[in-house]
Amino acid sequence: MNKKAIVEIEELKEYLKKVEYLSSSISLLHWDSVVNMPKEAIEYRSEMIGYLTGESYKLTTSEKMKEFIDYFNGINDLDDLTKAIIENITKDYNNATKIPEAEYVQYEIDKALSQSAWEEAKKKKDFSIFKPHLAKIIAYNKKFSEYWGFAGNKYDGLLDIYEPGMTTERLDAVFGELRESLVYLLQRIKNSNVKTDDAFLKGNYSVESQRKLGETILGQIGYDYEKRGRIDISEHPFTTNFGNKDVRITTKYDTSDFRPAIFSMIHEGGHGIYEQNIPDELEGTSLGSGASMGMHESQSRFYENILGKSMEFWSYFYPKFQKTYQDLEGVDFISFYRAVNCVEPSLIRIDADELTYSLHIIIRYEMEKLLINSDIDIDDVPRLWNEKYKEYLGVEPENDADGVLQDVHWSGGDFGYFPTYALGNLYGAQIFNKLKEEIPDWNQKIYSGDFLSITKWLKENVHQYGATLKPTELIKKITGEELSAKYFIEYLNDKFGKLYGV
Amino acid sequence: MNKKAIVEIEELKEYLKKVEYLSSSISLLHWDSVVNMPKEAIEYRSEMIGYLTGESYKLTTSEKMKEFIDYFNGINDLDDLTKAIIENITKDYNNATKIPEAEYVQYEIDKALSQSAWEEAKKKKDFSIFKPHLAKIIAYNKKFSEYWGFAGNKYDGLLDIYEPGMTTERLDAVFGELRESLVYLLQRIKNSNVKTDDAFLKGNYSVESQRKLGETILGQIGYDYEKRGRIDISEHPFTTNFGNKDVRITTKYDTSDFRPAIFSMIHEGGHGIYEQNIPDELEGTSLGSGASMGMHESQSRFYENILGKSMEFWSYFYPKFQKTYQDLEGVDFISFYRAVNCVEPSLIRIDADELTYSLHIIIRYEMEKLLINSDIDIDDVPRLWNEKYKEYLGVEPENDADGVLQDVHWSGGDFGYFPTYALGNLYGAQIFNKLKEEIPDWNQKIYSGDFLSITKWLKENVHQYGATLKPTELIKKITGEELSAKYFIEYLNDKFGKLYGV
Ligand SMILES: [Zn+2]
Ligand SMILES: [Zn+2]
Repeated sequence: MNKKAIVEIEELKEYLKKVEYLSSSISLLHWDSVVNMPKEAIEYRSEMIGYLTGESYKLTTSEKMKEFIDYFNGINDLDDLTKAIIENITKDYNNATKIPEAEYVQYEIDKALSQSAWEEAKKKKDFSIFKPHLAKIIAYNKKFSEYWGFAGNKYDGLLDIYEPGMTTERLDAVFGELRESLVYLLQRIKNSNVKTDDAFLKGNYSVESQRKLGETILGQIGYDYEKRGRIDISEHPFTTNFGNKDVRITTKYDTSDFRPAIFSMIHEGGHGIYEQNIPDELEGTSLGSGASMGMHESQSRFYENILGKSMEFWSYFYPKFQKTYQDLEGVDFISFYRAVNCVEPSLIRIDADELTYSLHIIIRYEMEKLLINSDIDIDDVPRLWNEKYKEYLGVEPENDADGVLQDVHWSGGDFGYFPTYALGNLYGAQIFNKLKEEIPDWNQKIYSGDFLSITKWLKENVHQYGATLKPTELIKKITGEELSAKYFIEYLNDKFGKLYGV
Repeated sequence: MNKKAIVEIEELKEYLKKVEYLSSSISLLHWDSVVNMPKEAIEYRSEMIGYLTGESYKLTTSEKMKEFIDYFNGINDLDDLTKAIIENITKDYNNATKIPEAEYVQYEIDKALSQSAWEEAKKKKDFSIFKPHLAKIIAYNKKFSEYWGFAGNKYDGLLDIYEPGMTTERLDAVFGELRESLVYLLQRIKNSNVKTDDAFLKGNYSVESQRKLGETILGQIGYDYEKRGRIDISEHPFTTNFGNKDVRITTKYDTSDFRPAIFSMIHEGGHGIYEQNIPDELEGTSLGSGASMGMHESQSRFYENILGKSMEFWSYFYPKFQKTYQDLEGVDFISFYRAVNCVEPSLIRIDADELTYSLHIIIRYEMEKLLINSDIDIDDVPRLWNEKYKEYLGVEPENDADGVLQDVHWSGGDFGYFPTYALGNLYGAQIFNKLKEEIPDWNQKIYSGDFLSITKWLKENVHQYGATLKPTELIKKITGEELSAKYFIEYLNDKFGKLYGV
């Protein structure tokens, strides 16, 4: 690179920092609005967020940004980091500018209407109220995908937002394989003689005690909730961050059951560890975060499920829980372990267990693909939804609120987002497989409470790259292979095979 | 006004809303940084705040803003509100643009150096470390005042920032009168036979109980800490707001003494009530806040001292405190009332009682006036400071940390700010005098816990005007008179005359 290019890179970085200051400010305004804000401030807060979002949009679509993009796309000997930055900002620029402004403004308005229609529809358990709005939102998303250059399978354009490089073709393959194995495994579990029960876990768990146990776990797995993070309460647990030194998670307590708070803390803690482990050098470059939604979810789900629901993990932590909760004193370890891993096909995604969860996602993936590519009539949506639930999970919704209306995502236009949840499971197991090769005594480490070795390995092999690599590249770099369903299937067959004797 | 003017007003209001969204965002970033932020985020947070502050500066000094100002200054038949807006934004525009940018940037750098020098000087109790920085900061402030057109008494330009329209001439008169009366009253108290004691108030007060009592008081005086506000903890109590529906206060608990938390909650609650009572119509106009620093302080000090340390207030609340704190059961009401009103001249401003507090301020005022008008040598500052403490308060600092180095204000360039604290006392007593005329049974109301009638009166007579009137205009509108020291002097003579039999 010549001198001018080096100066330009510095200028670009200064510019991207500003974009990041704005998005961090927006994130803080949002975090505060769900964690702290007094009720009556809601309207003014939306105006504040709207204003800053507009300013951020201006920066990412400015003439200046276009000049950066044009300049750097004309240079051949860029270093890898700069190349990744340019690719990333070019994509954001194109995604934003290829949609005509008037159309995007109308989309925002229609989305707001769609979201309130969905709320009403869900309350009244009536899909027909939401139907015309859903049709509109789908039409927008198809058009946007075309604008972005996805002429063939339009669903690819939506996947690409959340999971760069992911395609319907690839997902058909891995999700198809996963679905078959899951349905088969679930069938065998149903037919097994093992009956599981977790009712005895219901009890009396104070918020304070759950918080303390959660902090102990989080500290031990390597999420810094003091000097570089916080744990707060919100209706829906989430993780947010402003740089890598202020990474906050939230949880929600149920005083009759410790599982919602403890497992959501571990899940969000996984997201938090990822963000806290992003190297300083990537801050403010637009690449200082996780590689993709799916890769992020691989970390949260690894900590929550693979680690956090393992025999080894609980053999370390269960005695501490028994010490805190006298009701657990009489519960032997195996009953406890079985209870936290209880499999029970159900209608509601967010209540699903580790095994059936991915089936909920696959149903949504299949529906979205059909909808975006106009392969089904919108009238058939609830029927098809219910049929799939029947076929894959063996349960059938009695009304639309427990069926197709249960999730907010579609009303807000988030098509292509659901698959990342199941992708997280696949990436997670595939990465775990590699980790086991490189840390042969991994289970000994977990038994003894040494979770930091695990986190250190993840930092070196996953977190440190931030978003400099696409998820497709990253999974190959880590494991030497393309994304595969094999490892997650093996993991589930092994774990639940043992639990249910199948 | 013609049609064009009406359209322009709407445009101006849209523009000013943006300025407000930015300043609200900056305030939230700051509030979060002292209430919530994890330690290691400090550097990134300053960068975020720096960026948004720069954007806000751009908006207030833009060509667009200049056009608005020029346009509206050419129109004769503006309504009062628009006239007040134009006056306000013109002042901000001039204050910002009349300082050459390079000089302002250098000032910011020198201020940062000055603040760390002050910290070191205070720690080492050595004024000489801070001296060269103080000299520099003073030179800047003199120059700025000249830029702003204050050719005569340069201190007037600095007063005008915090207390629009206030002059050294006026302050000399009211503070001179106040000082004489206070010194004389204090002398008589010292010579009286009455010895006060408050040591018995030290005890064991849980944070939770203090918080609850504080909430009870705040709710009853009319600060909404739930739907439109919050109470949090910070090292230095303060009030901040983002519009009139999100007005937050902070406090600090001392488990050995309930007074710091309770009185700071009442004080900040006074600020909070003012901001919550600003009418919706003023939001986003640049006039949607208190009339001035002094007028704001009049409200916080009214609630904290005139109301919150009155016989009537405690005759209502003391039984509730006795119920909560068993140690107080044996303490009769009069001893308690005397203890919270104990007069004791001391060296440290922030620990001062209601009577001596204003003398601390007057000393600072006299020093600032001399410094800004170059009437004393910087070398003489500690000596003069100590002499004044000796003369007015009868106490003498043993070192600079307890003397001239105790406050952070000068190191940050905040000359002209201190007087507003004492002005708050004067305004407060003058307004209280009017309130007593219009609500003759005011003390009966307080005895019975009906504080809302008082707050309602303040809302109608003070709060509802926001910053549409200058403090000089507002005090005249409320009381029919110019600012006067008379009412505060009468109030103190009456209250402490009774307490000390003088
Ligand atoms: Zn997640
Ligand atoms: Zn105050």
